[in-house]
Amino acid sequence: MDVRIFHGQNRVAQIDPGDRGLAYGDGLFETMRVHRGGIPWLDAHLRRLRHGADRLGILLPDDTLLRVEIASACANQDSAVLKLIVTRGTGGRGYAPPDPAQPMWLLSLHAAPLPMQDVSVVWCGTTLAEQPALAGLKHCNRLEQVLARREVVAAGADEGLMHAATGHVISATAANLFIHDGGDGWLTPPLDRCGVAGVCRDWLLHHAPARETPLDRPAVLRSSAIFLCNAVRGILPVRRLDAREWPESAHLRALQRQLAAAHPGLN
Amino acid sequence: MDVRIFHGQNRVAQIDPGDRGLAYGDGLFETMRVHRGGIPWLDAHLRRLRHGADRLGILLPDDTLLRVEIASACANQDSAVLKLIVTRGTGGRGYAPPDPAQPMWLLSLHAAPLPMQDVSVVWCGTTLAEQPALAGLKHCNRLEQVLARREVVAAGADEGLMHAATGHVISATAANLFIHDGGDGWLTPPLDRCGVAGVCRDWLLHHAPARETPLDRPAVLRSSAIFLCNAVRGILPVRRLDAREWPESAHLRALQRQLAAAHPGLN
Repeated sequence: MDVRIFHGQNRVAQIDPGDRGLAYGDGLFETMRVHRGGIPWLDAHLRRLRHGADRLGILLPDDTLLRVEIASACANQDSAVLKLIVTRGTGGRGYAPPDPAQPMWLLSLHAAPLPMQDVSVVWCGTTLAEQPALAGLKHCNRLEQVLARREVVAAGADEGLMHAATGHVISATAANLFIHDGGDGWLTPPLDRCGVAGVCRDWLLHHAPARETPLDRPAVLRSSAIFLCNAVRGILPVRRLDAREWPESAHLRALQRQLAAAHPGLN
Repeated sequence: MDVRIFHGQNRVAQIDPGDRGLAYGDGLFETMRVHRGGIPWLDAHLRRLRHGADRLGILLPDDTLLRVEIASACANQDSAVLKLIVTRGTGGRGYAPPDPAQPMWLLSLHAAPLPMQDVSVVWCGTTLAEQPALAGLKHCNRLEQVLARREVVAAGADEGLMHAATGHVISATAANLFIHDGGDGWLTPPLDRCGVAGVCRDWLLHHAPARETPLDRPAVLRSSAIFLCNAVRGILPVRRLDAREWPESAHLRALQRQLAAAHPGLN
């Protein structure tokens, strides 16, 4: 694994054992698709990161340095995934954030995922707790997703859909969910109480006939087409959800073509 | 900081940048009071750790090796704090737990905290999300406590009380809460939906006239005495909660004496 670790402005050799990311998950991350040496959605990823850092009060590394290091890590990579973690940095024992704090940040390069076809999905029993203070953010407190993902692996499925404790359907463990509205549009759950506001989801809300609306389980099952999406894999049409099966959808193929035209890595 | 890092059975020089504790807070921790070269409540800490590891499916290090290393880290320490973190270990990108996994564990020694008197407490606006799958565990997803602790620091208080989203009072940011029941006993909130089941709380529930019952804000304010507790500081009588003040309590002093007799480090 190609890894670069920084503390503030300085490249360092290792993770500090007192890092607050390790102690408390006190950090944020971005998982970005690399295509032909660059990251097509870099600005959107850094915008979301900045929003999360503002909400949590985490200092971000210098933007110019961050972009230089990201560009350097991606150079010569035709197709890959670049993960960025930014933590609040090193702190003493105890929850109180250190002041001043120097962020720790880490770039790691990974192989691009294999294409996924005939995606099969199950319902996860692990729910998403409602926490408006953290909702939407791609923070590093991810035990719910880890537990849900264990269920997906045990079921032999590709992904799993998660509910909020209230019963609303929110997302997959590592992707957002859209369902066809029966006309020309798409629906995705609002994420003001839990869930991660994905970069691909955000692109679709701005560039496709898609809007937020609360979804329950019957709405998902009734829909004529459903898909998952994230910034690494793009749009993943769901073929099966337990006993429910969906045929190919012309609407969905059209949306995939639209996305591929805007982001050539996601085709 | 005196730190020892292990991967499975082996002592290693540094944290793996792919550690799942850093990526997802996918781990557990224990914060233990060291007294005269030993940890009086070691068995209780390791019991709680084992319970958490069972619930999360995290492999624990070998018990004998763990105890040997803990004893070695504490030797010659008259009064200190020993923190243990155990994570699921190193994993690839993605939430699915690696299988097989080797736990990463880390022991760090810290100075004992200064005694705290006339403890002042505020109400935190940050709530605790309800998640039965994680409730009670001392896991490493602690962003709620970090955000709440920022409020405590901003208010210039010593600690802060947190509610569940439902309005029930649960605990302080890093301590459990007990209130006097008006007779000979003490009440503390149940922790089946959120909160951390502290080792000192557990001792009190088994050795003092104390029981679990849901508490709301008026019950706390009406009580004739309230205290916080944890395994590092023992019992901390609360003197002030916003405008509410409490005088010294004979009941509370008696309970402190009982605890000090059982655990001489906590007096």
